Amino acid sequence: MEVLTGRRSGMKKHIHGGDIYRHGHITDFSANVNPLGTPESVKEAVRKSAEGIEHYPDVHCSKLKKALSEWEQVPESWLICGNGAADLIFALTLALKPKKALILAPTFAEYEQALKSVGCQITYFYLTEQEEFRVTEKILSEITPALDMVFLCNPNNPTGELTDREMLLKLSQKCREHQVFFAVDECFLDFVPKGQDYELAGCLKYNRHIFLLKAFTKRYAMAGLRLGYGICSDEKVLLKMTEVTQPWRVSSPAQAAGTAALSEQSYLKRSVRFVSEQKHILKKALEEAGFRIYGSRANYIFFKGPEDFYEYCLSNQILIRNCRNYEGLSKGWFRIAVRTEEENRRFIRTLQAFTKGETAWQRQS
Amino acid sequence: MEVLTGRRSGMKKHIHGGDIYRHGHITDFSANVNPLGTPESVKEAVRKSAEGIEHYPDVHCSKLKKALSEWEQVPESWLICGNGAADLIFALTLALKPKKALILAPTFAEYEQALKSVGCQITYFYLTEQEEFRVTEKILSEITPALDMVFLCNPNNPTGELTDREMLLKLSQKCREHQVFFAVDECFLDFVPKGQDYELAGCLKYNRHIFLLKAFTKRYAMAGLRLGYGICSDEKVLLKMTEVTQPWRVSSPAQAAGTAALSEQSYLKRSVRFVSEQKHILKKALEEAGFRIYGSRANYIFFKGPEDFYEYCLSNQILIRNCRNYEGLSKGWFRIAVRTEEENRRFIRTLQAFTKGETAWQRQS
Repeated sequence: MEVLTGRRSGMKKHIHGGDIYRHGHITDFSANVNPLGTPESVKEAVRKSAEGIEHYPDVHCSKLKKALSEWEQVPESWLICGNGAADLIFALTLALKPKKALILAPTFAEYEQALKSVGCQITYFYLTEQEEFRVTEKILSEITPALDMVFLCNPNNPTGELTDREMLLKLSQKCREHQVFFAVDECFLDFVPKGQDYELAGCLKYNRHIFLLKAFTKRYAMAGLRLGYGICSDEKVLLKMTEVTQPWRVSSPAQAAGTAALSEQSYLKRSVRFVSEQKHILKKALEEAGFRIYGSRANYIFFKGPEDFYEYCLSNQILIRNCRNYEGLSKGWFRIAVRTEEENRRFIRTLQAFTKGETAWQRQS
Repeated sequence: MEVLTGRRSGMKKHIHGGDIYRHGHITDFSANVNPLGTPESVKEAVRKSAEGIEHYPDVHCSKLKKALSEWEQVPESWLICGNGAADLIFALTLALKPKKALILAPTFAEYEQALKSVGCQITYFYLTEQEEFRVTEKILSEITPALDMVFLCNPNNPTGELTDREMLLKLSQKCREHQVFFAVDECFLDFVPKGQDYELAGCLKYNRHIFLLKAFTKRYAMAGLRLGYGICSDEKVLLKMTEVTQPWRVSSPAQAAGTAALSEQSYLKRSVRFVSEQKHILKKALEEAGFRIYGSRANYIFFKGPEDFYEYCLSNQILIRNCRNYEGLSKGWFRIAVRTEEENRRFIRTLQAFTKGETAWQRQS
């Protein structure tokens, strides 16, 4: 992770997607949220919540957990809600204080950041272009009793590559054998057709060493509200997480919005269908431009392209995710979210103009 | 701190004020938020924020920090915003990882919880009834080079006792001498008449070992939104805090609401006046009932009363704060917030009925 110090703010430079605040009028392809936009019922829940905000939020998230318990078909006691899924990553590492952990590279930067916050030593399992960024059998030999924790993002971010069920079961089995805690981030599984085939919720009954991470953020396009949840059948782990964090982590608007969101069943079906259709169109355009695509099984596309493509997009008011700051990647790797039909068309027009223009890429090829 | 395990939730039992969700129709005197209620401009900001919640929040809280910088008359680079002030307590302890810390007893439970989350050894400075729960000169001898950190809540919660400026300066001076980090929670100072006389913001320019904690929660009655901030002139401390936490801690509704709130100048003046007037009436009634009052310089009253007073209030649909679970207190200590005129009258009627009735208190006295 690149950590740069900002000019005056004393903050590290923002290196994630979705930073629309540092740019003027821009179309954002860098944040992977649902392109159908926030359901109206969720917005209405936020507006209504304004009336009650003088009260502290419910520390138990009771209504939300009841709805989640039905939605996920797990006991309420297996659930923990957080201020976005990222909040739970930090709470989990602070609760378990692992000394040695394994993460993929490239992967979502917050696992590393959270592990480092408790002084954990990190080993990377490097995903390679040659192996199409797949998690291969080789990872199994990395699971040893010396390890305390593994973070697996499935589908992985930024690659969008999926680890299949067989491999997931082998991994979870090996983790259990060696008492290694297995945290699986399923935040983007909602956008994978037949994503439920990859879910590990069914294993929790028999395996207390698994923590599943889920987000409302992406699924319902409500990133500004901050709401995520975790599922784990080891209630001691959840108790420890609440002991090392403040009780009022989840705001009242987020709790109300999350509860409303869980009724949006047809919205989710439409989302998966829409993302698949639009992704097909975007992928075709990228391939026609000569860019190489990998993974991309969720609501975002991961590809290799000319180094100056990011800047070209930016100069055309399109913000894409430059992936060069991911551990395991370098210049020339990008990620775009699947956006609305109109926005995707705009991206394709920009892409086509780029390939037609006098670019470094063309000069090289 | 009492940590009890809930029935099914796997969560520790809620032991703070403001838990209106575990009770039916109740008047809440247990949470110390502004009795004037949330300003309309703040509610409107929340309602408006619904439109943009698909986007991630601004990780730099730029607009909010700009407004805060003017409000507090400190550089933006000295500011850090959090998911409620409690979030910053945990971020600060995780950033500094103190090995040995001093806190008051009784005081707000989150300092202890946060310190324990990083395995810190805690020493208590016990405040006594004999000394009217005042922070006396004796505390100075506790500030030694062996110490890493001190948390001081001013006015203290739950006592509402103020530590005066001279004492604050001695403490901060001694902390600096011994390289002890001094965290001062000024969250309730907004309700103290001439509260600015106790503020340490003026010292920050010369002392980088001070962290001031502030909350929108109480000041603007927006506890459900979660928004607090910290001020520190050591930008390395703030940078470290951002490194050990997720970047999107402060939700978009909270940022919008906070920015709107800072324009509410007359609301704050009215709040201080209203709280003073109503507190006078409540104190008089409590004294007439024979209850002993201590401290109570902010928007809440701390008193000693008969053990069954809490249950009596609850049976009359009034929730007060039973302080028996605070370190340094036992049964018979209570805290009530100053509420609206009507609610305060209701409390006084209940209080009078209690003292007239057949109570354990009467039988004893």
